Amino acid sequence: MSEVALLGAGRIGNIHAGNIARQPGAHLQYVVDVDRAAAQALAQKHGAQVVDADRVFADERVAAVIIASSTDTHAEYILRAAKAKKAIFCEKPVDLSLDRARACAEAVRAAGVPCMIGFQRRYDPTFASLKSRIDEGEIGTPEMLVVTSRDPGAPPVDYIKRSGGIFKDMLIHDFDIFRWILGDEAASVYATGSCLTDPAIEGAGDIDATAVTIRTRHGRLAQINTIRRAAYGYDQRFEVIGSKGMLQAGNHRPTEVMLWSSGAITADKPEHFFLERYRAAYASEMAHFFEVLAGRERPRTSIDDGVAALALAEAATTSWREKRIVEL
Amino acid sequence: MSEVALLGAGRIGNIHAGNIARQPGAHLQYVVDVDRAAAQALAQKHGAQVVDADRVFADERVAAVIIASSTDTHAEYILRAAKAKKAIFCEKPVDLSLDRARACAEAVRAAGVPCMIGFQRRYDPTFASLKSRIDEGEIGTPEMLVVTSRDPGAPPVDYIKRSGGIFKDMLIHDFDIFRWILGDEAASVYATGSCLTDPAIEGAGDIDATAVTIRTRHGRLAQINTIRRAAYGYDQRFEVIGSKGMLQAGNHRPTEVMLWSSGAITADKPEHFFLERYRAAYASEMAHFFEVLAGRERPRTSIDDGVAALALAEAATTSWREKRIVEL
Amino acid sequence: MSEVALLGAGRIGNIHAGNIARQPGAHLQYVVDVDRAAAQALAQKHGAQVVDADRVFADERVAAVIIASSTDTHAEYILRAAKAKKAIFCEKPVDLSLDRARACAEAVRAAGVPCMIGFQRRYDPTFASLKSRIDEGEIGTPEMLVVTSRDPGAPPVDYIKRSGGIFKDMLIHDFDIFRWILGDEAASVYATGSCLTDPAIEGAGDIDATAVTIRTRHGRLAQINTIRRAAYGYDQRFEVIGSKGMLQAGNHRPTEVMLWSSGAITADKPEHFFLERYRAAYASEMAHFFEVLAGRERPRTSIDDGVAALALAEAATTSWREKRIVEL
Amino acid sequence: MSEVALLGAGRIGNIHAGNIARQPGAHLQYVVDVDRAAAQALAQKHGAQVVDADRVFADERVAAVIIASSTDTHAEYILRAAKAKKAIFCEKPVDLSLDRARACAEAVRAAGVPCMIGFQRRYDPTFASLKSRIDEGEIGTPEMLVVTSRDPGAPPVDYIKRSGGIFKDMLIHDFDIFRWILGDEAASVYATGSCLTDPAIEGAGDIDATAVTIRTRHGRLAQINTIRRAAYGYDQRFEVIGSKGMLQAGNHRPTEVMLWSSGAITADKPEHFFLERYRAAYASEMAHFFEVLAGRERPRTSIDDGVAALALAEAATTSWREKRIVEL
Repeated sequence: MSEVALLGAGRIGNIHAGNIARQPGAHLQYVVDVDRAAAQALAQKHGAQVVDADRVFADERVAAVIIASSTDTHAEYILRAAKAKKAIFCEKPVDLSLDRARACAEAVRAAGVPCMIGFQRRYDPTFASLKSRIDEGEIGTPEMLVVTSRDPGAPPVDYIKRSGGIFKDMLIHDFDIFRWILGDEAASVYATGSCLTDPAIEGAGDIDATAVTIRTRHGRLAQINTIRRAAYGYDQRFEVIGSKGMLQAGNHRPTEVMLWSSGAITADKPEHFFLERYRAAYASEMAHFFEVLAGRERPRTSIDDGVAALALAEAATTSWREKRIVEL
Repeated sequence: MSEVALLGAGRIGNIHAGNIARQPGAHLQYVVDVDRAAAQALAQKHGAQVVDADRVFADERVAAVIIASSTDTHAEYILRAAKAKKAIFCEKPVDLSLDRARACAEAVRAAGVPCMIGFQRRYDPTFASLKSRIDEGEIGTPEMLVVTSRDPGAPPVDYIKRSGGIFKDMLIHDFDIFRWILGDEAASVYATGSCLTDPAIEGAGDIDATAVTIRTRHGRLAQINTIRRAAYGYDQRFEVIGSKGMLQAGNHRPTEVMLWSSGAITADKPEHFFLERYRAAYASEMAHFFEVLAGRERPRTSIDDGVAALALAEAATTSWREKRIVEL
Repeated sequence: MSEVALLGAGRIGNIHAGNIARQPGAHLQYVVDVDRAAAQALAQKHGAQVVDADRVFADERVAAVIIASSTDTHAEYILRAAKAKKAIFCEKPVDLSLDRARACAEAVRAAGVPCMIGFQRRYDPTFASLKSRIDEGEIGTPEMLVVTSRDPGAPPVDYIKRSGGIFKDMLIHDFDIFRWILGDEAASVYATGSCLTDPAIEGAGDIDATAVTIRTRHGRLAQINTIRRAAYGYDQRFEVIGSKGMLQAGNHRPTEVMLWSSGAITADKPEHFFLERYRAAYASEMAHFFEVLAGRERPRTSIDDGVAALALAEAATTSWREKRIVEL
Repeated sequence: MSEVALLGAGRIGNIHAGNIARQPGAHLQYVVDVDRAAAQALAQKHGAQVVDADRVFADERVAAVIIASSTDTHAEYILRAAKAKKAIFCEKPVDLSLDRARACAEAVRAAGVPCMIGFQRRYDPTFASLKSRIDEGEIGTPEMLVVTSRDPGAPPVDYIKRSGGIFKDMLIHDFDIFRWILGDEAASVYATGSCLTDPAIEGAGDIDATAVTIRTRHGRLAQINTIRRAAYGYDQRFEVIGSKGMLQAGNHRPTEVMLWSSGAITADKPEHFFLERYRAAYASEMAHFFEVLAGRERPRTSIDDGVAALALAEAATTSWREKRIVEL
């Protein structure tokens, strides 16, 4: 039985707890959260115990920690977990500071513990299928990538202020997708953007709509377009043009019902938001983490991937703020 | 220059006149219609002359007649045209009486003139492509056929009274599709139906919704479902299941615009009605007729096809009226 | 804690066991199967005990039985469970004999125990959404129904011999869909069919492709088309035409990946077969059963629904065998 | 009868000649081409006369010229036509030099003749419908635009050498779409690109794949992605995100046939290339030109639009060559 501690009992912590419960041989032992009530509710549901973080890191039976707490705690928890030789699963981003993120990666490497970052999109059935079909050569060499990444609504401005900005908070997933899908590293990054949906976001020094272009070392091209508030919902698509064809990843819909009315033919909107859209991805991601924990697999989304995506987010932020192309 | 006479200056007559104008070497010489104003307007547009039918059949320069007049005149015009050795294009149905239709076919055969029936669906790009892909073996042996054939609205009850009933007026196209697609003849026909949309249709002794099943000599199965008034528009689809796969023919839409709104994703309804849906088919059909006239092709929709579809319509009518399965 | 016994440890029994494990307050106590090894494997996975049926019915702690054994055991188990005052979940069909099925319904009624039949399609997210949208009036009065129900491959002929024939074995689901969607009862049934895919099925006195037409008391029309072996896979769709529009239920696909190649644009085939297609439905169905067990809901798919679908299957069998329309 | 002269008897000249023939009251009088055989063939088909350009501009009966000759002749023909007070239809681009293009616009203005540029995409049924739905407010204020513009194959390198580069030759259409759809002017342009499909294109000093980003004066964002050789064919799509929803314009397909095979579900590829894809657009564009000629409408795609698109193409070229963001 692998004993696991969950740091963070919010929405995503709850998702992870549910998926831990489905892993044979796994047991959620501890839950940690500054919000004791939330921790208590989650712990009760899963037969776990509410403790503070010290207890987690001190308990030798704890084989792994799931870090789903607020971003500003990630680095500290990673460092402590590495020191305590516990396997680590950490939500993105590793940290808002690239230096600190690199230090975490270094500590993890030195400790020799597995560390997996929660880039759940790579575990989504549609995205994973697309990727494996690229790897099988269906479209030849990938040449261009267009990523559509739009949220149904912006988070509270309070959250935005602490988020590190749209590139580190929201596009970090897209930067990871870019690296994964094109299998190439960025040579230059250009980012521009606007505040189109809520002036309060501009007041917080951030933007809510962006257009990013990445040119890779091999001359491949990627465009990412994002908006915090797509009036029609959550929109997660991409297409990869290769020398022999194109692969597209489309949205998932709650049902396959269509209405033919006197005005039009209508289908369901995409799944509401990430919790719905990536339900299967979260499950598959956690299953993979337990394979990693058992030593049967290596993390498919490593802390190095986390650092690399953060470096792109930082380059994009610089490009946007300084209105220049950033060479890497 | 092939001189052509058009009998009937209504909606479909106008379509044919426009398509005749696009055939190199064709000239619309005469227009005949009991509605002189309609005939005049059409004739003027195409540089033709308004005459009565006698003049058409007496004029040796007339190589071909296009019969687009009301159904009750078809048989007479076919017989006169055959006698006058003119090539014939006639709208469906040949006649409401199977005996008279057979007599027409006999007269055409005896006269040795080409006679083509306006089953325009066979000339539709989508349907024709599907058929040729069946012929190329893409789905192996065709085994089952499901035909969806729904109109956006019923014709006036006055028209319905003279129409020969829904099976001869509306489903005759579907019976032709059945024979063409499955490449087999009916062994038994079962038809049922209801008057669901307008009691006046029931008052006229007809129905407005039908379900027909045909079993072929080789045991293949076909189902046809029709309704005179589909609230969402004109719906013309079919699918053919074969031993190796299925081919589907879908509707055509006016544009490829989609709206993603806060409620749903919506696409255009299908093309409004047959004049829009089968615009390309009418053009292709008429081009084929002039190939037939030039002796380069044989009618792909012959008067025998017209008779065979009518026989199925009659069997379906009997099945419905007498509530029994009709063996053929 | 509700103690539950599972009768039948085959494929569907395993699905149910997994879903029981997800119900809070439910516990799988007993597993019964003539195949002891299968029973043992399933029991071990879920911490249950392998016993014989007598033990199940004698143990007062058992609140409910899940009957997922072979069809010939359903009636006996239902009768015994009713007598022992246990709640019943039973896979379709209730029995191959309409009389015996009615006797079961009678016994259930007399015992006052809840009895739910496993028509899982009603619990599918797409089908359930479509149904509730009909109920909300989106398409006005339902008038016509077209059901497409095709399997990827026929079961072994040995199974077919004991199956009661295609109408009771396969179409029973479609008959239930018909009643549920149109909200009306059959006035007449016509069924025809052929053996198109495997002569051994004909040898077993059965067919593998059918076309069924039902006319309801209110004159509504339904067509069902089925085939045991659709070369392209499992195909479960239907469309309902109402006075104001049409609702379609489409297939579910494993992923939303599309390939644009030099030849065509291709999407995934539908989910492989019922275990994949109806995964969510099976989960939702079992959750509903435990709501029923808790007295909070009444069975949405009752034994009376099971009897009514069987009556339609019997009428269809008669229509096919005797080549006549069966009035009900 | 409006007498018209066609300058250029190539592929697009032939398309225009066919569409002129369909305009009531229009007559193709003259055809001019350095390739006399091509001019002769086209003239014969339409009852026109092959002459040289001097004759066209000297003949007072010529009301309008259609300039479909090679790009290097456009400016001269526009200037001569303006001087001769003839209405002008000219294919894009006006010229490869922005200065010369501006001089043409000035001359046209001074002469007071109508001058329409052949941005046919604006006349495409799908694109025109999308635009009018934006104008009707369906998606509120347009905020972002993503343009997909991919060709099935690159033109000969010889052509590319004289083409002015990919931005002036190929993306000029997309720059026009950008201005038309967002209804806003560019504030900054960033373009990057690569030569991915054929080294000979790089040898010619050009690229074959580009990623362009435009930020407008109102802060709206547009991304354009293009490739000269999309292995799967011609791909012309765009989507516009507005404050209330999104509108998408999709490709047109030759037929609506779908194949469900044992491997996948496949649909037709998009229409082969621009001649097929924009057939309706070319017809509608020419009809509009004759409305302009009759004084009933003003050019919807004016020479100023031609100049503006060219200015964007020049800015993009500079951005790409000098690796910098170009402010406008």
